[in-house]
Amino acid sequence: MKVIVDLTVIPLGIGVSLSKYVAACEKVLTDAGLKTQLHANGTNIEGEWDDVFAAIKRCHEVLHEMGVPRVSGVIKTGTRTDRDQTMNDKVRSVQQKL
Amino acid sequence: MKVIVDLTVIPLGIGVSLSKYVAACEKVLTDAGLKTQLHANGTNIEGEWDDVFAAIKRCHEVLHEMGVPRVSGVIKTGTRTDRDQTMNDKVRSVQQKL
Amino acid sequence: MKVIVDLTVIPLGIGVSLSKYVAACEKVLTDAGLKTQLHANGTNIEGEWDDVFAAIKRCHEVLHEMGVPRVSGVIKTGTRTDRDQTMNDKVRSVQQKL
Amino acid sequence: MKVIVDLTVIPLGIGVSLSKYVAACEKVLTDAGLKTQLHANGTNIEGEWDDVFAAIKRCHEVLHEMGVPRVSGVIKTGTRTDRDQTMNDKVRSVQQKL
Repeated sequence: MKVIVDLTVIPLGIGVSLSKYVAACEKVLTDAGLKTQLHANGTNIEGEWDDVFAAIKRCHEVLHEMGVPRVSGVIKTGTRTDRDQTMNDKVRSVQQKL
Repeated sequence: MKVIVDLTVIPLGIGVSLSKYVAACEKVLTDAGLKTQLHANGTNIEGEWDDVFAAIKRCHEVLHEMGVPRVSGVIKTGTRTDRDQTMNDKVRSVQQKL
Repeated sequence: MKVIVDLTVIPLGIGVSLSKYVAACEKVLTDAGLKTQLHANGTNIEGEWDDVFAAIKRCHEVLHEMGVPRVSGVIKTGTRTDRDQTMNDKVRSVQQKL
Repeated sequence: MKVIVDLTVIPLGIGVSLSKYVAACEKVLTDAGLKTQLHANGTNIEGEWDDVFAAIKRCHEVLHEMGVPRVSGVIKTGTRTDRDQTMNDKVRSVQQKL
C-alpha cells in the first residue's frame, strides 16, 4: 500500500532551536531511500507504507539517541485505491485550478 | 519503544456519515489488544510502537476493503525516555493544576 | 458558524513538563464559557467559530506571558451545514456501531 | 502576534476529487494578501494572527457556499517571542544542517 505522508517532529526538552533535530530526521528519511519534500512546517514523504513508517519510527529513536527526552510528532496520512497519485500530482492538480 | 498516539481517520468518497468507518477502525484497535479511548475528534491509543502502527495500517486497509476509495488520517505521536507515562497520567497531571 | 475543534498546545523551551501550561490554556477556554473535554492528547471544544478562535489565540498569548518563548499548536476543525451535531453526538454515533 | 500556520482543508461529502475546493481556499488566502506556500499536504501561511484566522474561517465558509456539507481542517500554529522568523528561515535553518 502506497502512502503520502506529512511528518512534523517536535523535540521537547532541548530548548527552542529544533533545526538540528529536524535535519537528523531528514537524513533518516533520505537514508531510507524515501522521496521527501521539506517545507516550512514539516516534510512530505511518498513511499510504501512499511518503509515510510519504519523511517518515522527511526526518527523518534534517533532523536532520543541524540539526547531528546520527549518527542512529539504529527503525521498526516493519505492512501487511495481509486488511482495512483504522487506528491507532485497533488500540487499540480490544485495549481491547475487556480 | 512505548508510544501514546491520537488517531483520526477520515474516509473520503463515501458521503458525510463517517461513524460506521470509525467504528470499524475502533474494532481493529481493540482486536489488536490496544488500550484505547474514543473522543469526539479521534481515538487515543497506548502501546508498543510496532503494535500501534500495525493496527493503524490495518485501519486504512479495512476501510479500503469496505469500499472507501480514499482515506486521510491524522496521527499525533508521543514518545519519552525520561519516564513512563500513561494516557491517564497525562490527563491527571493537567487536572491537578486546574 | 458552529465549530467542533480539537486543540493541542505544545510549549517549547520550558523543559519536558507541559501540564502547567496546558492547564493555563484550559482555564482560558473555560473562562471563555466554552464547552470543553480534556483528553490525553488535547482538548475538544464546541462553540461559535469566533469565540473558539479568540480563546485559542488567547492560549498562545497567555503561554507567552508565562514566559514560554515558542508555542506550537495543532487544531482540528469541523464545520457542517447538513445538520447540528455536538461533541457527544459524535462519540455516541460511533459507539452505537461498535 | 505573528503566526506561521500549516492549513489542510478536507471537504467531505463531495467525492474524492478535492483540488477544486483546495484551489478555492488558496484564492481566499491570496485575496487576503497573505504569504502562502502550497505543498503536497497543505498550505503554509505567514501573517498576523487575526488576518490568518479570518482567512481560514472564510475558507470553511466558501467551501460550504460551494455546496460542501462538511469541512474538516487541520491547522498547525507556531508563534514565538524570542525572535522573528519567516517560513523561508525555517526551511533554510534545517537545510544548513543537512
